[in-house]
Amino acid sequence: MALIVKKFGGTSVGSVERIEAVADKIIASRSNGDDIVVVVSAMSGETNRLIALAEKIQEQPSPRELDVLVSTGEQVTVALLAMALHKRGCGARSFTGSQVRILTDSAHTRARIQEIDSQRIKDELDQGHVVVVAGFQGVDGDGNITTLGRGGSDTSAVALAAALDADECQIYTDVKGVYTTDPRVVEDARLLRTITFEEMLELASLGAKVLQIRSVEFAGKYKVPLRVLSSFEDDPGTLITLEDNTEMEAPIISGIAFTRDEAKVTVSGVPDVPGVAYQVLGPVSDAGIEVDVIVQNVSADGTTDITFTVKRQDSEQTRKLVTAVAQQVGARDVSVDNRIAKVSLVGVGMRSHAGIASQMFKTLADESINIQIITTSEIKISVVIEEKYLELAVRSLHSAFGLGEETALAG
Amino acid sequence: MALIVKKFGGTSVGSVERIEAVADKIIASRSNGDDIVVVVSAMSGETNRLIALAEKIQEQPSPRELDVLVSTGEQVTVALLAMALHKRGCGARSFTGSQVRILTDSAHTRARIQEIDSQRIKDELDQGHVVVVAGFQGVDGDGNITTLGRGGSDTSAVALAAALDADECQIYTDVKGVYTTDPRVVEDARLLRTITFEEMLELASLGAKVLQIRSVEFAGKYKVPLRVLSSFEDDPGTLITLEDNTEMEAPIISGIAFTRDEAKVTVSGVPDVPGVAYQVLGPVSDAGIEVDVIVQNVSADGTTDITFTVKRQDSEQTRKLVTAVAQQVGARDVSVDNRIAKVSLVGVGMRSHAGIASQMFKTLADESINIQIITTSEIKISVVIEEKYLELAVRSLHSAFGLGEETALAG
Repeated sequence: MALIVKKFGGTSVGSVERIEAVADKIIASRSNGDDIVVVVSAMSGETNRLIALAEKIQEQPSPRELDVLVSTGEQVTVALLAMALHKRGCGARSFTGSQVRILTDSAHTRARIQEIDSQRIKDELDQGHVVVVAGFQGVDGDGNITTLGRGGSDTSAVALAAALDADECQIYTDVKGVYTTDPRVVEDARLLRTITFEEMLELASLGAKVLQIRSVEFAGKYKVPLRVLSSFEDDPGTLITLEDNTEMEAPIISGIAFTRDEAKVTVSGVPDVPGVAYQVLGPVSDAGIEVDVIVQNVSADGTTDITFTVKRQDSEQTRKLVTAVAQQVGARDVSVDNRIAKVSLVGVGMRSHAGIASQMFKTLADESINIQIITTSEIKISVVIEEKYLELAVRSLHSAFGLGEETALAG
Repeated sequence: MALIVKKFGGTSVGSVERIEAVADKIIASRSNGDDIVVVVSAMSGETNRLIALAEKIQEQPSPRELDVLVSTGEQVTVALLAMALHKRGCGARSFTGSQVRILTDSAHTRARIQEIDSQRIKDELDQGHVVVVAGFQGVDGDGNITTLGRGGSDTSAVALAAALDADECQIYTDVKGVYTTDPRVVEDARLLRTITFEEMLELASLGAKVLQIRSVEFAGKYKVPLRVLSSFEDDPGTLITLEDNTEMEAPIISGIAFTRDEAKVTVSGVPDVPGVAYQVLGPVSDAGIEVDVIVQNVSADGTTDITFTVKRQDSEQTRKLVTAVAQQVGARDVSVDNRIAKVSLVGVGMRSHAGIASQMFKTLADESINIQIITTSEIKISVVIEEKYLELAVRSLHSAFGLGEETALAG
């Protein structure tokens, strides 16, 4: 008999009918004799409806009161799901974050979980109940309602799984699991049955929106086996595991992530003196603009080029900030290119396999795709290319590294 | 500097605009330097919306889960009202029933308040905050969310006022206060400036829907001065006081209540033997039907007539139940009359003034209105008459007892 924490997001509980379908899924799982804790989000649209009410009153409402307001969304769902379980003859009790005492700090709207009192939940499980917990929310030491910020329900589920020492934390979504790459771009993208936490973190940070990065970090830290699976289909989905659980013959590359929402900024002819990178990038991060890739090349003539990428929506503001700095430090030129895309190969196998980078570069060269920037980490190689080549690049890499369904069957 | 508890119902907070108007009213009251605790209901329609969601799942949902669900309604309002106060530069904090620890028993959907921990509220008041509390809800000893049942927000307000030893509990409604009778029936019905708890209780039980009877009982028991006033107009409304606060020259009659939603059931020719009233009425109350007036006359021939009134919607079911019993006990006949109305004079002055009843009967006789049933209590005389005479009866009594605006000014 296992203890499973299941999390269903807003789309999965978006209507009474969908809540009933979730109840059916829970009943089916319980027929194995498993103990079940369910974490749910607000019904889709509800959080936005509540925020809109608040914004009719104040543009920037008090974060404390905003938390009191939006936390009602999940409270509605837990009650309705408990009723749907009762209807099926299944004992169930709902709890708010405050009731199970998901203790957080007091950073309203983006609180961090500090501690969970698991005893109340264990008592309910001992009585044979399914325990339905409101995700996304907690309570601070003074009894104030807090929320965990976007994607917080995933974090609630993982934190509960860790506190309860659950056998698995299952995140139900509207996709079947984690794919080798986006199936909308590559037709034969393959559903991964397992992936490591590190790979998942890289994929998530590179734009694969399946899981909130924070919950993956959390699950990795507390060694909670995490599974991503579909609310709407019967499929075991993808299990995210610690590295030492993976098979000997794990594939070298797990997946290809990509993003097209970045812009490239190049400051050329920068005097190559200590501290100049900080001078150029300091004002950008001071303005709250997130900088992704940064590369700097040495050059022969005592000047250097600094290139970095920012979110595309920040590119104009960045151009202004950097142009001002460029004059101060005596740089030659600032150029901004919005028509770029970033493509990344991710895989823990890279650590022990040489030649991945060169195979990647050769594949792109064979398609006449020019690489503008290269960055690497231990389990990832990213390249920035012209945006119009994005699909071509992803498809040819997917095929070159044998990630497709056909290849997997053949292999 | 006084401590005032103000309660605003669902209509008063039915939209963001109305919530802003309530905030204005609170700011205006605070300009006297008073400390203010506000109790609010769910926005009008919200509780019904939530119950409809539940009923889509289960006809009779678990009372515990229903409470988790519907209590979100008030939680939304407290957050929005706190924001509206912040917008006006006024410090404010919202609290759920659970957070201020309105401790109740565990009778979900109709819980009774047992205790309130007033310290948290006092601390907030000391910090200069307006304290905004969710009405209608509390928490039981195990931390389960409870609700107080219909009209529970009035009760919350009175209970808070009692716990905080407030100087006044003000119930804002959509009427200006308590009138001598329904102004829709009698044009010159007069707004009462004061009324005693006992009179208010009688008026409330007789169909004057201004206040929930339970909150009036509660206020009387804890000697909380209660004021009914309009959310939409600037008027001091009606103060409900302990009897010894009323003036020496208090009017004999405070008001005239009436109801037309009852039906009269008569069982005639009942053998006049001990226990027969119980035999007739037992099955009715066993069926959960509320019986109002009951009269039984002795008669000369060894039989008696028993007449009673029930809610009109229950009259057919009552007829069936009583007809069965009538056969068993050998009664002669059962008749049901739906076209009746009940008119009641209420006033503590009756205690010390003889002749009120005869003046009432004469007034009705002068208008050729036949009285079908008479019942009296210490501060009330009720008569049942044919429904079509209701307005005429109320107007002539209102005038005969000098309750109108004109008379009041002249007196």
